Amino acid sequence: MKLVFRDPVSGRLLDNIEIVEADTGKKMGRLDAAHAIEAQRSKNYTMDTDLYELTMAAGYKVMKRSNQRACFDLYYRQNPDDGAFCIFAGLESVIRYINNLAFYPDDIEYLRSLGLFPDEALEYLSNGLQFTGDVWAVPEGSVVFPNEPLIRVVAPIAEAQVLETTLLALVGHQTLIATKAARLCIASRGAPVVDFGTRRAHGVHAALYGARAAYIGGVVGTSNVKAGKMFGIPVRGTHAHSWVESFDTEIEAFEAFAKVFPDNSVLLVDTYDTLQGIANAIEVAERMRSEGRELKAIRIDSGDLAYYSKEARGMLDQAGFQGVQILASGDLDEWLIESLRDQGARVDVWCVGTRLITSYHTPALGVVYKLMAADSAGGPMQPKIKISQNPRKVTNPGLKKIIRFYNGNDRMIGDLLTSDDEPIPNGEYVRAHHPMYDYMKKVYKPPYKAQELMIPVFREGKQVYDPPSLEEIRKRAAKDIERLEPEYKRFSNPHIYKVSLSDSIYRMKKELLNYYQETLQ
Amino acid sequence: MKLVFRDPVSGRLLDNIEIVEADTGKKMGRLDAAHAIEAQRSKNYTMDTDLYELTMAAGYKVMKRSNQRACFDLYYRQNPDDGAFCIFAGLESVIRYINNLAFYPDDIEYLRSLGLFPDEALEYLSNGLQFTGDVWAVPEGSVVFPNEPLIRVVAPIAEAQVLETTLLALVGHQTLIATKAARLCIASRGAPVVDFGTRRAHGVHAALYGARAAYIGGVVGTSNVKAGKMFGIPVRGTHAHSWVESFDTEIEAFEAFAKVFPDNSVLLVDTYDTLQGIANAIEVAERMRSEGRELKAIRIDSGDLAYYSKEARGMLDQAGFQGVQILASGDLDEWLIESLRDQGARVDVWCVGTRLITSYHTPALGVVYKLMAADSAGGPMQPKIKISQNPRKVTNPGLKKIIRFYNGNDRMIGDLLTSDDEPIPNGEYVRAHHPMYDYMKKVYKPPYKAQELMIPVFREGKQVYDPPSLEEIRKRAAKDIERLEPEYKRFSNPHIYKVSLSDSIYRMKKELLNYYQETLQ
Repeated sequence: MKLVFRDPVSGRLLDNIEIVEADTGKKMGRLDAAHAIEAQRSKNYTMDTDLYELTMAAGYKVMKRSNQRACFDLYYRQNPDDGAFCIFAGLESVIRYINNLAFYPDDIEYLRSLGLFPDEALEYLSNGLQFTGDVWAVPEGSVVFPNEPLIRVVAPIAEAQVLETTLLALVGHQTLIATKAARLCIASRGAPVVDFGTRRAHGVHAALYGARAAYIGGVVGTSNVKAGKMFGIPVRGTHAHSWVESFDTEIEAFEAFAKVFPDNSVLLVDTYDTLQGIANAIEVAERMRSEGRELKAIRIDSGDLAYYSKEARGMLDQAGFQGVQILASGDLDEWLIESLRDQGARVDVWCVGTRLITSYHTPALGVVYKLMAADSAGGPMQPKIKISQNPRKVTNPGLKKIIRFYNGNDRMIGDLLTSDDEPIPNGEYVRAHHPMYDYMKKVYKPPYKAQELMIPVFREGKQVYDPPSLEEIRKRAAKDIERLEPEYKRFSNPHIYKVSLSDSIYRMKKELLNYYQETLQ
Repeated sequence: MKLVFRDPVSGRLLDNIEIVEADTGKKMGRLDAAHAIEAQRSKNYTMDTDLYELTMAAGYKVMKRSNQRACFDLYYRQNPDDGAFCIFAGLESVIRYINNLAFYPDDIEYLRSLGLFPDEALEYLSNGLQFTGDVWAVPEGSVVFPNEPLIRVVAPIAEAQVLETTLLALVGHQTLIATKAARLCIASRGAPVVDFGTRRAHGVHAALYGARAAYIGGVVGTSNVKAGKMFGIPVRGTHAHSWVESFDTEIEAFEAFAKVFPDNSVLLVDTYDTLQGIANAIEVAERMRSEGRELKAIRIDSGDLAYYSKEARGMLDQAGFQGVQILASGDLDEWLIESLRDQGARVDVWCVGTRLITSYHTPALGVVYKLMAADSAGGPMQPKIKISQNPRKVTNPGLKKIIRFYNGNDRMIGDLLTSDDEPIPNGEYVRAHHPMYDYMKKVYKPPYKAQELMIPVFREGKQVYDPPSLEEIRKRAAKDIERLEPEYKRFSNPHIYKVSLSDSIYRMKKELLNYYQETLQ
């Protein structure tokens, strides 16, 4: 299929076209139509999904159930790295995805070529599939916990179903990286952490959105240039070993770098021999000072970071360079940072790559998207349940919202999943049920502050939420982390944060379990 | 900056333009210029890099060294999952990246806004930075081993340096997933493995290129619809638990699915109770048969897969449905597949998600890009070395190629890194040195077959390689895996494949080590 451009004014057809700056006429690029189609598609993730979402949507259509109203919750079951919380990220990508939801004609042709879909279903996907439902979500940057809805979709079932895979991929990835970043910042106790992960990310897009998520989670900057440009994240960088090797001597290489970047010189000192490298950096720093400039920092990328950072600090201080910072990099993670700090390492900035950008120890978040309610034949919505032999996989049914309780010190004390129509507790005693164990109950007693967490994002298919800036999202994360008691933030056996069910949700769950276990068998 | 379109024929400026099918005039979309710029950018990864690549390029320019010729090798140091090999993937993305290398004017404006780059350097990045060098690579789909160059770049040093981060991200990710797929297929012993990982990938692009890599590594299909459309990979899918829950009973849900997809019905049997689900599927299969149709398969997604698959096989066979396949899914990996096979699980198709698409146990490949040689002041290229206290991190210097030796049974027996200008061994005795341990030597004796592995991909900036089809790449992987002795393919303590240095490379490495250790200190 050959694509061409058409001038909507004259109707003329064109093979390619120039893009120019309106004011100056300066040529910015040349474009052909096939590329242009991809342009729109770079923001369109409709086909980035599992086949079964489309077969189910088709099935609902053919069964004349596609308009059956359904509620799906997106949530995760287990915190990464045996931690106690996550930082929710990815909502902005989700909003863009839903706003751009549409199949292109050649997508439909492809689906037709599979010989799988009835024509009626293809017709529906081609013309009928746009999102007309409601979406609620927790604000990006919020501290969240297992088994509570991060996103709730209420829509005609085919539309709601189709969102599943893409939502999971976007939210799972970005929440994972934001959470890892928060853990690294907890380990560094306020010392700056920088994202150096781009080269080890799962492709360039994972690096880009990972950098954004890491910034939400608390890193102060990224090495990723596009993330700097697109999201306004501060960018950071030094030089590589190859810079040093390409010169005849290390000193020459350092001198050259300092000459080109007199105000931003960070010298990597471990290409040949780290102690010698530090001595060479000091030599360059002295020459710089004699010219009225100051070396900014050195970076150590290998070897025993505790030993070398202490040696470096000593050598730098003795030479009168108390202001020269020490950057450390090289397979760092939160446990290693904690251990190095315990050993008295003198590191000013922690540069973390692989283990941040891949969330190395837990590289996937077990995020799921489950049916919680559906109407039958136009009646009111009925709660739905998925049963499993693993009690943690049994769903908590119904249309729910999250109520978060804070104590007098503004610290989080627990979350409660209530029915969407229950009032927000306001000083009364509130009973909370463990989602699995009957005997575990809890009562929230005044004084407490109770707040609803989810906010409306789409209503009847229209975006009703104006997302905050990235800086605001990052501030929310910082504030939420501050509102978590320290027991939830340690890396070994952290305290488990309570996410409970209200009386009504708990009763509903038990009734449904009884129904399916006694009626069906 | 407002962008508009210009008709290159009439010179007319246009705010937006239509895209139509050339033959029919059918409208495929409307486009504005800002989107169109993004179009080209969706293929342009120039800014998807670490800041330090650009500061180094700038530094080389300002130091008047940007045209110094340099050789970089891209390689990895350690196999994922304690395995013995990798399947190289990502070359096609690399070729596209290099062909599209260019900064846009607003990229340069962003870089200028950082206040970091001298004007001369920005001028260079803006106009001078296009790739004019040579690239060699191992063909995609090849079995490869640690410490051998997968890609070799010889170019003016600034151009070669700038490629580093993006090349690493593309090759590292895709090689990791291709390798994991190959391991899963080894575990399944020929039974089909399908990629179900999209929802747990690190974003939608990681899912898409991961699906392609997994197909190279041997999976027979993917759930990812876009991967099906873009790469021609067979797509697979069933339905979710939500489909079952949205109906009043499981039987109704099964009946409905079988009605809509009479020739492709795979029923998920574990929404409420797996054994009951299997019985219900059989009931539907009987009804289908009475109408002249056949149920294709059932899928079990939870619980004890060994037990349930055996029960399911028994129940299906007894009911006369020997042809109905059993699909298994749910946190599968190569070790679990091997264990389930050992337990006699009756699984026909293995559907692997999270642990494939994230390479869960080793979610990053330690891929690096190191300077191997550089000319100084226009003279011939001099070998370069990076020294480390970790002997595995000391580089193997010089312009190298890979010679692979095969025995009379066409099995791989070892790889040798030789100087680029050494002849390919042709029947003579060949001495091979361990890269680290002096005393470990090896001699390749005739009869053997020796082949060079790397092929030219770019010459003087022009692509000279016509990449094979995805099917051919996949076949190469299958053939290469066949040419590996079984000892390299086991999961526990596999045999270590020998990658050795030729006399000349070994001598060069020792001389450089001596030079830096004796001269510099």
